[in-house]
Amino acid sequence: MNDFLLIIEKIRTFRDDRDWMQFHHPKDMAAGIAIEAAELMEIFLWKNEEEQSQIVAEKRERIEEEIADIGILLFELADNLGISLAEAMETKLRKNAEKYPVEKAKGRSSKYTEL
Amino acid sequence: MNDFLLIIEKIRTFRDDRDWMQFHHPKDMAAGIAIEAAELMEIFLWKNEEEQSQIVAEKRERIEEEIADIGILLFELADNLGISLAEAMETKLRKNAEKYPVEKAKGRSSKYTEL
Amino acid sequence: MNDFLLIIEKIRTFRDDRDWMQFHHPKDMAAGIAIEAAELMEIFLWKNEEEQSQIVAEKRERIEEEIADIGILLFELADNLGISLAEAMETKLRKNAEKYPVEKAKGRSSKYTEL
Amino acid sequence: MNDFLLIIEKIRTFRDDRDWMQFHHPKDMAAGIAIEAAELMEIFLWKNEEEQSQIVAEKRERIEEEIADIGILLFELADNLGISLAEAMETKLRKNAEKYPVEKAKGRSSKYTEL
Repeated sequence: MNDFLLIIEKIRTFRDDRDWMQFHHPKDMAAGIAIEAAELMEIFLWKNEEEQSQIVAEKRERIEEEIADIGILLFELADNLGISLAEAMETKLRKNAEKYPVEKAKGRSSKYTEL
Repeated sequence: MNDFLLIIEKIRTFRDDRDWMQFHHPKDMAAGIAIEAAELMEIFLWKNEEEQSQIVAEKRERIEEEIADIGILLFELADNLGISLAEAMETKLRKNAEKYPVEKAKGRSSKYTEL
Repeated sequence: MNDFLLIIEKIRTFRDDRDWMQFHHPKDMAAGIAIEAAELMEIFLWKNEEEQSQIVAEKRERIEEEIADIGILLFELADNLGISLAEAMETKLRKNAEKYPVEKAKGRSSKYTEL
Repeated sequence: MNDFLLIIEKIRTFRDDRDWMQFHHPKDMAAGIAIEAAELMEIFLWKNEEEQSQIVAEKRERIEEEIADIGILLFELADNLGISLAEAMETKLRKNAEKYPVEKAKGRSSKYTEL
């Protein structure tokens, strides 16, 4: 079940059953991801660290749904562009490891340009 | 390689090598996803449909990187909250199928509240 | 009525009547603006150019409200940081004029780094 | 100088000198605002409350620029749609006063649906 390809297959079926490929331009998919990410952010808006833990417990289902919404759009976008999300993530982790070498980045929250 | 768990393991290692868990509050992770989504959007800003295809070809590496950045944060956030991203996506696809029944939603780009 | 300072005064009163300054950290204000911007984007999601004109007519009130929400947060954030929004905008327009000289930028939608 | 109309006039001139109206569809303007808001958010990403104050001091110019970028797009979008930003903000403040009555909302950070 934890396989990217099985999920992608379900997403494709969902989309094609509704004939939605015509709307799923990469620009709109990117906007869709940003919109869902904003809905996830809204759950935590104005809340301090302590309150965040409480929210994570109280609004679990809504958080799961927003995370899933982002995932569904992200997996489809990658698939539409012929990008392997898994490979892209592994490649990016390697690049990030170069941008953020352990000895410089450890315990620091700065962007790589400021390390 | 197309397995969620293998990727999550690499993300955890990357983060813990840098002792970054202390910064990765859900509120910040959500903001991080929104920021990466905005960087993806920016690639297509002001561009029409025709130009989008050209951009997809010309800026493939940058698009892959932004998609990967979103994925890395999303997978870690789900993992941090004890959420199975794969299961959450499958559950949400089922809910979406109810919100967007094929006979109502086919070929239409309206939100479910307006179908 | 078209005066920044009058509006800022009303925003301050609204906030202070509710004792909300304690929540209005710049990080949260920025997130609030991003969330409202996403709500504005959502009105146009999946829509082509032709449909956009129709939406502008049909959903005028909602569009006005989202634009206003962004404005209210933006004006307050600038005010909280002691920034004159009007001056900041004029300064930025001058910088943009240097980044996008007319002879290079005319009729082109590229970012200044690609002109 | 603190007058909306003077700024709008400068924004119009900047845009028309570059013949950019052709790109400034409301959907793109909304995306542009969201992108600039994300750039503002990024300045505060991963930072706690105490660090935010330091950042406000250290990165003042960058913060001013991001705030101005949002303002420039917001003022132009309102103008393009024939919306008076000042009036829309005043109208929305009145609506917000109804959604968030002082006696319910005072000192609370909850959304009006949860008060």
